[in-house]
Amino acid sequence: MNRDKLISTIYSKRSFLCIGLDTDLSKIPPHLLTAADPVFEFNKAIIDATHDLAVAYKPNLAFYECNGVKGWISLTKTIQYLNAAYPGQHFTIADAKRGDIGNTSQQYARAMFDPASSGLDFDAVTVAPYMGEDSVKPFLSYPGKWIVLLALTSNKGAADFQFFSSSGTRLFEQVLSRARDWGNKENMMFVVGATKAEMLTDVRRIAGDHFLLVPGVGAQGGSLQEVARHGMTKECGLLVNSSRNIIYASSGEDFAQKARAEALNLQQEMASLLR
Amino acid sequence: MNRDKLISTIYSKRSFLCIGLDTDLSKIPPHLLTAADPVFEFNKAIIDATHDLAVAYKPNLAFYECNGVKGWISLTKTIQYLNAAYPGQHFTIADAKRGDIGNTSQQYARAMFDPASSGLDFDAVTVAPYMGEDSVKPFLSYPGKWIVLLALTSNKGAADFQFFSSSGTRLFEQVLSRARDWGNKENMMFVVGATKAEMLTDVRRIAGDHFLLVPGVGAQGGSLQEVARHGMTKECGLLVNSSRNIIYASSGEDFAQKARAEALNLQQEMASLLR
Repeated sequence: MNRDKLISTIYSKRSFLCIGLDTDLSKIPPHLLTAADPVFEFNKAIIDATHDLAVAYKPNLAFYECNGVKGWISLTKTIQYLNAAYPGQHFTIADAKRGDIGNTSQQYARAMFDPASSGLDFDAVTVAPYMGEDSVKPFLSYPGKWIVLLALTSNKGAADFQFFSSSGTRLFEQVLSRARDWGNKENMMFVVGATKAEMLTDVRRIAGDHFLLVPGVGAQGGSLQEVARHGMTKECGLLVNSSRNIIYASSGEDFAQKARAEALNLQQEMASLLR
Repeated sequence: MNRDKLISTIYSKRSFLCIGLDTDLSKIPPHLLTAADPVFEFNKAIIDATHDLAVAYKPNLAFYECNGVKGWISLTKTIQYLNAAYPGQHFTIADAKRGDIGNTSQQYARAMFDPASSGLDFDAVTVAPYMGEDSVKPFLSYPGKWIVLLALTSNKGAADFQFFSSSGTRLFEQVLSRARDWGNKENMMFVVGATKAEMLTDVRRIAGDHFLLVPGVGAQGGSLQEVARHGMTKECGLLVNSSRNIIYASSGEDFAQKARAEALNLQQEMASLLR
């Protein structure tokens, strides 16, 4: 999904909601556990119940890898189902936080972007910046694909290194500035945590019109209004992620219905915030 | 494998060689491509040919993920074969460069360290530090397991952020200092590239007796003598990785034999460097 299509999808759905598929076997409704692939059945039900409210879906790869080969099968089935059942209707993000030397990042890019090789066909992958330019650029060699680069994350540990400051420039600001030379607003987004909403003003100054992926609303405590106030552009420029609050809204047989209700609350709030 | 066992293995094998299993379908000998699982057959042959020379093996997960579910199967078979055929004889590292918020890193740790969950049972995993303490600590909650934290990497892009300097302290030095509070020399190593061998002296000043995993010897241009001169301690304190130079020494039917010859060259040089 390219940038124009993403923006038009946001305004037609009146939503900038990304739903995080952090699907954990120990948290999904017990009645699903007898299915052949409980993780996929759960994801399919969540997707079917929220597809018109969500602009993006973001499976978090850790929650699949922890189940080994089975988990990788669940992940593959999930992205294939989403792309086949609702073609072109969602922006899909592999939340993988990958990044390595060039020849290795090239293989991670194939993993996420080349279905003939891996079976996966995401629009975007999250990337960690620590190893610098040649660890990031291979992900940008796939036309039409995106990277979502970590800048300022939503967790407590963000303060350990991301605020490390040289001559008044903090590391996350340095990451934003350097990365703008590597990609452009058609192929690069940045992760900025909702728990740091007041800092979105600083981020916007550097990130320009780049889209921001904002985790941390909900379970982690961030506020949607604050995020919109400090981070929204005239083209929206935001994807706000919610995972646990939506997908685990109920552990009963009504889980998908309750997930829809939570997603609808967020979508309605988003509709009122969109200019 | 704990620290004492690692050190005794190094001195009994007279080697601190880590062999990187960056196994690429486009580079392995063509005659293997008709096998049911060419990647596993290749890895098995390399392991069998080098097991007495290598102290550690390090599959690079990107090279498995790019093949999707099939790749994850090859990875699982490789680590299971290695642990079963040569029990307790090698230190095994999942080169994965993972790291995310706490609840997610916990799932990545399960993926690498909990065979009942994922089928994988590595001794260690490489971790990226950008997200700070709570992204790193969950990996330390498995007794007997290790993390190998990125500090100063071997690639050109290392200069983009790792040398970012605050009041005379560079980011990689800040990572080393902070991380020493999170783990200890029994459960934490650091990645320091061989292409920056002269900086190993600075690294040692902060990293103390922690083991260092040193990539970049061989294809990337680093020198083993320089690494040993600047980084070796009285307990060795080094694992030096070589991947492409060993595993792709030949693309013919003699690939395993040629890989052994390359590994033997390195092991003999290492034996002469060990105090």
